[in-house]
Amino acid sequence: MAKYIVEFIGTFFLVFTVGMTVIGAGAGVIPPLAIGSALMVMIYAGGHISGGHYNPAVTLAVWIRGRCSTVDAIAYWVAQVLAGLAAAYVVLYMRKQPTVTAMNPDLARALIAEALFTFALAYVVLNVATAKGTAGNSNYGLAIGFTVLTGAFAVGDISGGAFNPAVAVGITAMGLSAVKNIWIYLVADLAGGAAAGLVFRLLNPDDK
Amino acid sequence: MAKYIVEFIGTFFLVFTVGMTVIGAGAGVIPPLAIGSALMVMIYAGGHISGGHYNPAVTLAVWIRGRCSTVDAIAYWVAQVLAGLAAAYVVLYMRKQPTVTAMNPDLARALIAEALFTFALAYVVLNVATAKGTAGNSNYGLAIGFTVLTGAFAVGDISGGAFNPAVAVGITAMGLSAVKNIWIYLVADLAGGAAAGLVFRLLNPDDK
Amino acid sequence: MAKYIVEFIGTFFLVFTVGMTVIGAGAGVIPPLAIGSALMVMIYAGGHISGGHYNPAVTLAVWIRGRCSTVDAIAYWVAQVLAGLAAAYVVLYMRKQPTVTAMNPDLARALIAEALFTFALAYVVLNVATAKGTAGNSNYGLAIGFTVLTGAFAVGDISGGAFNPAVAVGITAMGLSAVKNIWIYLVADLAGGAAAGLVFRLLNPDDK
Amino acid sequence: MAKYIVEFIGTFFLVFTVGMTVIGAGAGVIPPLAIGSALMVMIYAGGHISGGHYNPAVTLAVWIRGRCSTVDAIAYWVAQVLAGLAAAYVVLYMRKQPTVTAMNPDLARALIAEALFTFALAYVVLNVATAKGTAGNSNYGLAIGFTVLTGAFAVGDISGGAFNPAVAVGITAMGLSAVKNIWIYLVADLAGGAAAGLVFRLLNPDDK
Repeated sequence: MAKYIVEFIGTFFLVFTVGMTVIGAGAGVIPPLAIGSALMVMIYAGGHISGGHYNPAVTLAVWIRGRCSTVDAIAYWVAQVLAGLAAAYVVLYMRKQPTVTAMNPDLARALIAEALFTFALAYVVLNVATAKGTAGNSNYGLAIGFTVLTGAFAVGDISGGAFNPAVAVGITAMGLSAVKNIWIYLVADLAGGAAAGLVFRLLNPDDK
Repeated sequence: MAKYIVEFIGTFFLVFTVGMTVIGAGAGVIPPLAIGSALMVMIYAGGHISGGHYNPAVTLAVWIRGRCSTVDAIAYWVAQVLAGLAAAYVVLYMRKQPTVTAMNPDLARALIAEALFTFALAYVVLNVATAKGTAGNSNYGLAIGFTVLTGAFAVGDISGGAFNPAVAVGITAMGLSAVKNIWIYLVADLAGGAAAGLVFRLLNPDDK
Repeated sequence: MAKYIVEFIGTFFLVFTVGMTVIGAGAGVIPPLAIGSALMVMIYAGGHISGGHYNPAVTLAVWIRGRCSTVDAIAYWVAQVLAGLAAAYVVLYMRKQPTVTAMNPDLARALIAEALFTFALAYVVLNVATAKGTAGNSNYGLAIGFTVLTGAFAVGDISGGAFNPAVAVGITAMGLSAVKNIWIYLVADLAGGAAAGLVFRLLNPDDK
Repeated sequence: MAKYIVEFIGTFFLVFTVGMTVIGAGAGVIPPLAIGSALMVMIYAGGHISGGHYNPAVTLAVWIRGRCSTVDAIAYWVAQVLAGLAAAYVVLYMRKQPTVTAMNPDLARALIAEALFTFALAYVVLNVATAKGTAGNSNYGLAIGFTVLTGAFAVGDISGGAFNPAVAVGITAMGLSAVKNIWIYLVADLAGGAAAGLVFRLLNPDDK
């Protein structure tokens, strides 16, 4: 049970930081730096208990790689989505029910952007947090958090830069993304995570 | 005695950086980046001597978790508050007695903002600096410092982003926060720290 | 074969981030922070498989230092250049065939800028990732990635701040740099990398 | 001899980055981030050979702490100052003999600013790079580099934020600081470094 609570706490602070900085600071250097840092610190805080996924696409990748049981994967998904929703409602209260405009992304480009960087994110996670070759390295949290920072800078203006279905649920509940577009994140992010799981197995045949 | 001096030095530079950058640079990316970095570097410098708290709410959390004696906790609080005051007066001299306007926060939202991120801060501290599962990890300072960076970006415009009663004393002495509002920080920050101590014990029943 | 794929993936995300942020955000703090972070995270993800070069000049330096076979060096160069081209074409699609103006650099200054910081980059790589004296240090990725960040801030307005022939191929294919100027990067970057290899051997005579 | 070359290389890139970003980007987030990163990466690259001082005030502190011979201290000072001058002349060439205005600092405040943060810098160095209690920690470079980042944000507008006599020589040669003011940096920075050496010995009586 402790690990599900840890997943809830970490995802809550990640999505809360997304909402507070995107609504508060808009575009620029602040949201990606804050969001990447939020993910990083929550990974350092909770990684030793839950693995520090905070992201259904990462959980899918870790499940494919064989380091997460099916029961845990389902419970993680539930905890992550509930945390994304909870964070969204706290953001709406803290920002006084802001008037925000949902993005109007170009579908093909948004799908590519989300798939590419969710692949990168899960590829980094699997290599820095589950591979034998990087055991003992302290920088897994920095690497994972700053992959999201990089992706948010690179393609944030194209897809919003979620790379995470729980974040997608949160920004949809906040009104930053339209309900009709949530499938973009679900499809592209889970596909990117699954692809990373398969690529990891291909590249590391001896690391079971 | 060395550890009390280390707490004074670290808290002094933390609060000094708060005042110099908030008064000098105002809103934007600079104060959170500078303040998070100040905390990080002082944790790396002093953590091996005092634990690197620099924050009465963190000291409370570590005391609840059972890794700080009651005598030390009281002496740390004294050193931290004195350092916050000393830093404030040096800032006022360096900035030539600036004319600053005290924030006028929304009380309920400021209490929530301070409690949430002081909880996050103490939760990160307990997990990265006192848990068995993260022993040997080099990134405790980065994780703790950048939790403050994250919080300052996320809710700095709502509560000022102190997450630390010694910082609250300092910004009150500088005039950045009104004397009548200091209870917000004392109540919310200590509550957040205490909650983190209790949650840590709940999540790590075998790590005494 | 796995290591060539890893070099392709890492170089792809590096050059993709270069193009997306330079075309999307222009000058300022974002491109260097994003690009340095992209390199850092890909080094943490792939370093244990391929060494995490993602740069023909780094591969040359590592080959001179004696930690990369000639066959691997050639295959790495091919993978890196192909990845640079692939990233360029994806950027052009994502940015809808943008109208960009190629830089018009001062030749002598651009050569010096590229040679100096490619030397610094390869000097950092050899010391943090291949020297006996730093074995076990977790921060090789941070050090290498943030060398590019430093160089991009310091001389980005003079040469574009490639420090990497694969990046040079990519920004040329995107139109950010003129075809007639690509020799600047090839000559200066490979010379800087080779110089770092020789300096490393001079400074570390006992570390074969 | 290798360690003197390493000190020259590291100080050169530090002062070169100072000049290129201060003259190129002016105030704001870029120079402190670039300068702190330059110091960090050069510490990771050269620390295992020379200790990675790149700063006469740090060398003084390490000498007082008893971890640097007198002969090395003198040779380091020579290498550092020569590197500062060399970097200045390359900056002037790269920036086409720029017209810059020397700072006109308030003397008392500039002395305090330089002394305080050079103390902090040397205090961090001694604790993270020479203390028994932090042996094996990977983050010495991050801690030291980001102390300069913090100080540059906190007091850069008051003293220029050198915290380093070799940087002071460099910015004087570039015209960013007046020749008549160089004593400020020499006096305050060496005093700050010496104070840190004495405080370290006081706080760590058993760590010889």
